[in-house]
This record gives sequence, structure tokens and C-alpha cells, in this order.
Amino acid sequence: MQQNLFIYNTLSKKKELFKAINPPYVGMYVCGPTVYSDVHLGNCRTFLAFDLIYRYLQVLGYKVRYVRNITDAGHLEGDGDEGEDKISKKALLAKVEPMEIVQTYTNDFHNVLQQFNALPPSIEPTATGHIIEQIELVKTILQNGFAYEVNGSVYFDVDKYTLTQDYGLLNNRKLDDMLANTRNLGGQNEKRGKLDFALWINAKPEHLMQWPSPWGMGFPGWHLECSAMSNKYLGQHFDIHGGGMDLVPTHHTNEIAQNIATCGKNPVNYWIHTNMLTVNGQKMSKSLGNSFLPHQLFSGQHALLQKGYSPMVVKFFMYQAHYRSTLDFSNDALNASEKGFKKMMAAVDLLPKLMATDTCDININQWRSQCYAAMNDDFNSPILIAELFDGVRIINSIYDGHLKIDAQNLALLSQTFTLFLVDVLGIPLGNNENNDTAVLMDFIVQLRNDAKQNKNFATSDKIRDGLQQLGFEIKDSKEGAIWSKK
Amino acid sequence: MQQNLFIYNTLSKKKELFKAINPPYVGMYVCGPTVYSDVHLGNCRTFLAFDLIYRYLQVLGYKVRYVRNITDAGHLEGDGDEGEDKISKKALLAKVEPMEIVQTYTNDFHNVLQQFNALPPSIEPTATGHIIEQIELVKTILQNGFAYEVNGSVYFDVDKYTLTQDYGLLNNRKLDDMLANTRNLGGQNEKRGKLDFALWINAKPEHLMQWPSPWGMGFPGWHLECSAMSNKYLGQHFDIHGGGMDLVPTHHTNEIAQNIATCGKNPVNYWIHTNMLTVNGQKMSKSLGNSFLPHQLFSGQHALLQKGYSPMVVKFFMYQAHYRSTLDFSNDALNASEKGFKKMMAAVDLLPKLMATDTCDININQWRSQCYAAMNDDFNSPILIAELFDGVRIINSIYDGHLKIDAQNLALLSQTFTLFLVDVLGIPLGNNENNDTAVLMDFIVQLRNDAKQNKNFATSDKIRDGLQQLGFEIKDSKEGAIWSKK
Repeated sequence: MQQNLFIYNTLSKKKELFKAINPPYVGMYVCGPTVYSDVHLGNCRTFLAFDLIYRYLQVLGYKVRYVRNITDAGHLEGDGDEGEDKISKKALLAKVEPMEIVQTYTNDFHNVLQQFNALPPSIEPTATGHIIEQIELVKTILQNGFAYEVNGSVYFDVDKYTLTQDYGLLNNRKLDDMLANTRNLGGQNEKRGKLDFALWINAKPEHLMQWPSPWGMGFPGWHLECSAMSNKYLGQHFDIHGGGMDLVPTHHTNEIAQNIATCGKNPVNYWIHTNMLTVNGQKMSKSLGNSFLPHQLFSGQHALLQKGYSPMVVKFFMYQAHYRSTLDFSNDALNASEKGFKKMMAAVDLLPKLMATDTCDININQWRSQCYAAMNDDFNSPILIAELFDGVRIINSIYDGHLKIDAQNLALLSQTFTLFLVDVLGIPLGNNENNDTAVLMDFIVQLRNDAKQNKNFATSDKIRDGLQQLGFEIKDSKEGAIWSKK
Repeated sequence: MQQNLFIYNTLSKKKELFKAINPPYVGMYVCGPTVYSDVHLGNCRTFLAFDLIYRYLQVLGYKVRYVRNITDAGHLEGDGDEGEDKISKKALLAKVEPMEIVQTYTNDFHNVLQQFNALPPSIEPTATGHIIEQIELVKTILQNGFAYEVNGSVYFDVDKYTLTQDYGLLNNRKLDDMLANTRNLGGQNEKRGKLDFALWINAKPEHLMQWPSPWGMGFPGWHLECSAMSNKYLGQHFDIHGGGMDLVPTHHTNEIAQNIATCGKNPVNYWIHTNMLTVNGQKMSKSLGNSFLPHQLFSGQHALLQKGYSPMVVKFFMYQAHYRSTLDFSNDALNASEKGFKKMMAAVDLLPKLMATDTCDININQWRSQCYAAMNDDFNSPILIAELFDGVRIINSIYDGHLKIDAQNLALLSQTFTLFLVDVLGIPLGNNENNDTAVLMDFIVQLRNDAKQNKNFATSDKIRDGLQQLGFEIKDSKEGAIWSKK
């Protein structure tokens, strides 16, 4: 925490020095997925961006309580108050219980993030698990006069709210502007104002997911859960709130309004938003046919993909763009990242083989500071990766004998790679697929070299032939023996 | 579903022909873990037994809705109504929010079951996610006259219940007997009868997890969640309910009473219970120091373990005992299972290499029927595995040229192995876990044995020390060198 971390805050539209409310504790809330279909790459990018942020805050010494919710009820098709519940609709189509849909796609989501080696959040609360807390929140907002009930639904009164508060705070837009751009579909006869939104929605008897409330059977409005759950687990005022930038104009704008209407406090100090994905320069979308799922990207099974890329390569590729920039997928860009990734991992593999000398040509501390500086500048992962490639050049020069390094700086070089590659970027060392195989084969090749040096050709031949039978081939080359798997 | 499946029913104490209520649908509820500490092996055994049952029912053509809950509130230390909430206590000790405890150990539980290649259930509901449903259930039981409120707590009235119902139904015990064996601790001044149990517990202000209810702030009794969640997702009357046999006398007995008090219906047709674990013949328990966690069993890092065993070997070992027998852990038994497992997987690897002939010496259909017969006899996995070893002998005899098989029978042989090994036992083919590592380590151990036999102790020591550095350990035992990964 000696570091000065700057975070771009959507509220102020500028980079601000990060100050935790109660250091070393940091509360961070990130809007999680609505679990009604396979997690898409845009979601993955958002959650990997916040994984990076979560990891870096911990590297700086903060104790982070990271809450990321699962939306399993209340998210309607239109993202506003119109249409069917996304999960109920899928359940009706698949002829299963809504919670089976929730389970299936929550599992998919967890599996994909696990493949990306993302850390699980500290708490992963669900909307259906907090119906009581949401009902309590609606009661309070009604008591405070910022909502009204019509026919068993409760709406937030934006007009009343704007008398004392700035509703366009996060979006940086004037109210007239927002009004002019609002369609008016959901509950249109019941709402007093065009910008009003539902806190609690009266359920028709056929609605699959509904609960008893003081206003009759119903279900919570989509925006409510995040206010209720952040409140419960992080308090009325916490440090960081994040999500995709598409959530700014409605979901997060309404979340702030709900919180302020509850307790008068602006809930969050730093709002962080991630940017969108494009494919070959075009917006990624199902209707354009240019949208692929994580497993398609891993396997290469998609018309637009030349080949598959491992989850670590995809993550490395994503981190080569800053989270606030759009990220463009193309075969060329992915191939370039894969090449870079392999180059970096090859250099890291050399680290244990480097020899320290008495003299030292380089200042590792300086380079290490630049790595920190990159991350301190709004978590600038592409700059960090560029710095790590400088580290790769240093490693290769030492290995080639063009640079000398002393023991202290060598230890620091090694430790800095572990810190930024493993702890910050979440790329495990030695997890270069089948690492054990590589390690053991190198060991066996070494045993064979020893046998040859001792002119024990019976043993060296036995090793070569034995491996052959096991499906491994050893070829002698100028640079020594090379092994491969048949 | 042409098969006649027999299931041992705890209710009737005998094997009964399985008849689904609404074929092809089957509803199955299994009591899941209380997520306040690392999942222990006894739990794993229970959940792997029900994974086998879930898989086999699907192989028979049933469409199973498998509900397995997560207990994240209400489970008190004494398993009755006394002591602190297990999760809250851990949260206080660790100085974190209870839901952080829940998240940590839910993740651990999922990771371990994933290592065992257990299928996720269709729905995995949580107690805290169903507070409203539990409150509604308490209201109904109160309305029906089977419960009473005292000081904000609600208790089930066992005396009243026994006027018309058999409370000892599942446990097969007389009421006097049960009364004589009951301690009376929790809420002792409030309970009218010694066997009465809490449906809703009044929370002191300092209690960490509490919710508003018609009886004030409080939390649900442990037994209530399973009635509420099975009711919600499987209905008032469903096919199968399972759990560890330790749950019979209290948790499941009270669950049945709650359901009958709610709607008059006996909720479940078939109650299935799994037996306990022992270590070298003694009960596995923390106080005896003979209890190990799954990851300790995988790594071999426990004083009682000679080495580690892969999750598939452990699962194979577990399935070599019937779920209603005790399962005794010992190094000898684990080693024997590992040997058997390797033998079976080696035979399976031969399957694609077998050649069909025009004549046929064996009747594969007969053998396949015996595999089904084993599973139809109350999911008798040890008999199934013995049958599969008969299959191994068949494969090896064909490979050695001692038996002839025609194309049709060869296809059936291969398909039957896939069916029972992969689909029923959940052991993936060709995923011989780190197969390369095992193969290469066995090769290196062999090289070391050769060196020792040639009295080349410099080399044999170099191999042992070199492996040590790479994280592999070689121990010499009576039966030769054994390797393990640190």
C-alpha cells in the first residue's frame, strides 16, 4: 500500500488516487452474469478484468471482500421492466424448472472461469437467495417516499428523486436528454413517470418464479438485487463497484438511486466499467454470426477461427488490451498473442538456469518499479505485459551471456516475474500443459546423456528403446537430444 | 426401464422393486453438506454413492431431477437445537462474514467432487436461499396444529403428532425407546415434550445470520430446509430421498414428520442411506487422529498413508464396497484397488486392438446381463466391478489368442465397458490421470532398479535425489520402489 494506485472513476470521468475507506480492507462489488445461457466472451472479459483488479489490490496488501452476484431471477428480456423473465422463458422452452436452468448455466460459468484460472469471489450471492432483503429495501424506499405501489407492483419515483438528487450522476447526462431517449414499454399504464422503474413486480399466476410480499405475490425488479446484496455484504458505503459499461445508463444508474433513496448515501466511491468486444472490427453479436463461445475459442470450432487457443493464451490476449479499450478478436491478433505467450513462458523456464556473477549490468529494481507503475496507472495490463517482455529480453541476454547479473538482482528478477505473471495476471508457471511430462522427459534425457558420457551405451540405448515403446521419441541433434511424443 | 431395479428401502427394511411415480421422471433428493469446513471423506462416499445411483437411473432411461442442497444456515453444533450455528461459529473465529465461510467451503466441496468426476445435481438449493419457503412451511404446520410458538421460537409438537402418526417410522423404533435415549438441551425450558424440535429459532441480537419472520427475527431449524426445498422442487410426494445413515434417527425422522404435518402425505417412496467409513477397522474420527481429507489421500500427505492415490483410484476403491456396507481404509486395500484399477484400464486400452474372427467362443450378452443384474440388485457396485474383471479376463484372452470373438460380440464387449465404466461408474476412458507421468515414473523407477541390480549405486542415488528435486519421492518397500508426487 506504499504504492499510489490511480483508478479511472466513471463518476468523475477521470483517474483518481485510490483511497480505501477502511484500509487495509476494501469492499468490491461486481455485477455477475444472468444465468440463462452459456457465458459469452464479453462477460469473460469483464470478469477477467476484475480478477486482475482483485489480484492486484491483494498484491498491494489490501484485504478485499469481493462480492460478485448471480442473477437468477428478475432480469427481464428488455433489461428494463418489459418482456418475460429471461430464466423463466428458457425454463418454459426447455420444459424444466427454472432452477435447473440456473444450475446448468451457473456450472458452465464457473467451469469457464476456472479454465481461465480466475479466483472465485469471496461471496457469490444470488437474487433468489435475497428476496427478504429486497422486500425490506422496497419497504424502506416506500417509507422514505421515493416509491409508490400500483396493483401489487412498486415503482421508483424518479421525478420525486430528481427534486433533491442528480439521477444522471453516473451517466453524466441531463434529465431531459434521458427522458427523450426512453422508450416506455413495461407497466406503462402504471408508471407515473417515463423514467420510473420497477422495484417489485406483481406476478401473474402463471409466472414461474414468485414470492409472497406485502404487495402480494411477485418478484423483485432487476436493479434491486445489487443494492440489497451490496448493502448486506459491503455496507451502505463501500469502495469499488464494477461491471460492463452497458450497465451504466440503466442498471447502475438505478442502483445508485435505490441506495440513495434508502439511506441518503452515495453507495460507492469508485465505479469501474469495462469496454466491449469486437470481431475483425465489427461489434460481436449473435445476429451478425460473429459471436463465439469460450469453448469454441479453446477448440477452434467456429467458422471464423483458424485454430484453437488455450485459455491462458486467450487471457494473455485479453490483457494485451486495457479494460477500458474495445478488444478486437482476429486470427492474426490471437496468433500474435500465442507467439508472444510462448516466448514469455520459454524465457520464464530459463530463469532457474541463469547463473549469477559478481558484477551486474542491469538495475532490476528500476524495471520492477515500471511494472508497478503500469498497474498503478488504472491497471494498465498491456503496459505491464510490455514491461514483462523487457524482462524476457533481459532473461535471454543473461542466458546468452550478453548481460551479467548478480545474485541479489537475479533473485529479484525471478521474484518479479512470479509476482506479476502468477499473482497479478493469474498465469501459473510450469502449467505449460503437461509440465510433469516435460520435467520427467528432461530428466530421462539427462540420465541418457550421463550414460553416454560414461560410455555406458547399453543403458543409453535401453533408455531410447524403452521410451520408444512408451510412445516417446529421442532424437540427437547438434544442441543435444530432443524428445517428442509420438 | 425394461430392467427390474430393486432398491433397499430404509422404510421397509427390505429390497423393493423400484416403481417411479411418474415414469420416465424420477425425483431424487439428497442431503448435501453443511459448508463450514473441508468436505470429509465420509461425505464424499455418500455423494459418490448417489452419483452412481443418479447415473444408473439415467442409464435405465429415467429422466432424473436430482436435488442436493447446501446447508448454509441453521445447522447447530449439536445436530439438534443446542449450541451455536456451525457456520456462524466458524465466521466468528475467522473474523469474516458467514457467507465468506459458505463460499470457501462450497468451492472446496465442488472442487473435490469435480476431481472425483461426480455429476453436478440438477438443482443445488441453499437454506439461506429459501427462508421465505421455510417460513411459509412453519405457518402451515402451526395452522395444522402440529407446532406451537414460545418466545419467538416455533417447536414441532411430537406428542400431538404421535396421536395420529408413527414418529419412529423411519428409525423403526418405539416412542418410549426414543424418549429414553433423548438428551434435553436446546430450548429445554420452552419445549413441551422431550422429542419436540425447533422449526424456527428466535435469534439473539448478536446472532450473525437472522431474518424477519411473523415470530420476530430468527432463523430456521436445521431439519426444515430439506422439507421446504424438496417440496418446492420435487413436490409433496416424490421417489427417492437419500443421505448418510447418521441422518436417520433425527434429521430424516423430523423431515418426514414436518412433511406429513404440512400436507398429510408421506413424502418419499424410497429412502436410501449410505454407511460409514472406518480406517484400519476403527471408526474414522478427528479425535482418533485417523481422519484424512480427500486432498491428503490424493497426495499421500498423512502419517497413516504410504503414498497418494488418484481420485479415480479412490473412487474405484470406494465402489468396491457396497454403499450399505462400512468401507475400511487401509494402505493394503488402497494398493490392491490401485493395482486392480491399473489392470482394468490396461485391458480397456487393448479393446481397440482386438481383432474379430468369424467364429465366437463367448456369449457377451450373457456377461452384459450379469453387469445389469449387479446394478439392479440395489446398485451393487462391488459385484459390477467383479463382473468387469471377468470382462478384463475376456479381453486379455482374446488379445493373447486364447479366445475368439466375432465382430458383433466384440462391438458389444466394447460398448458394455463404455456403458458401465464411463456412464455408470463415472470413470473416463483414456483419462488415466497424468497417465504420462505414471508411465514415465514407472520407467525411471525401473532404470533405478536396474542400476541397483548392477551395483551402480551412484546412479541409483542420483535418480532418487534428482527426482526429489523435481518434486517426486521414491520410497523402497518390500514390494519394490513406490513413487509419489510431493
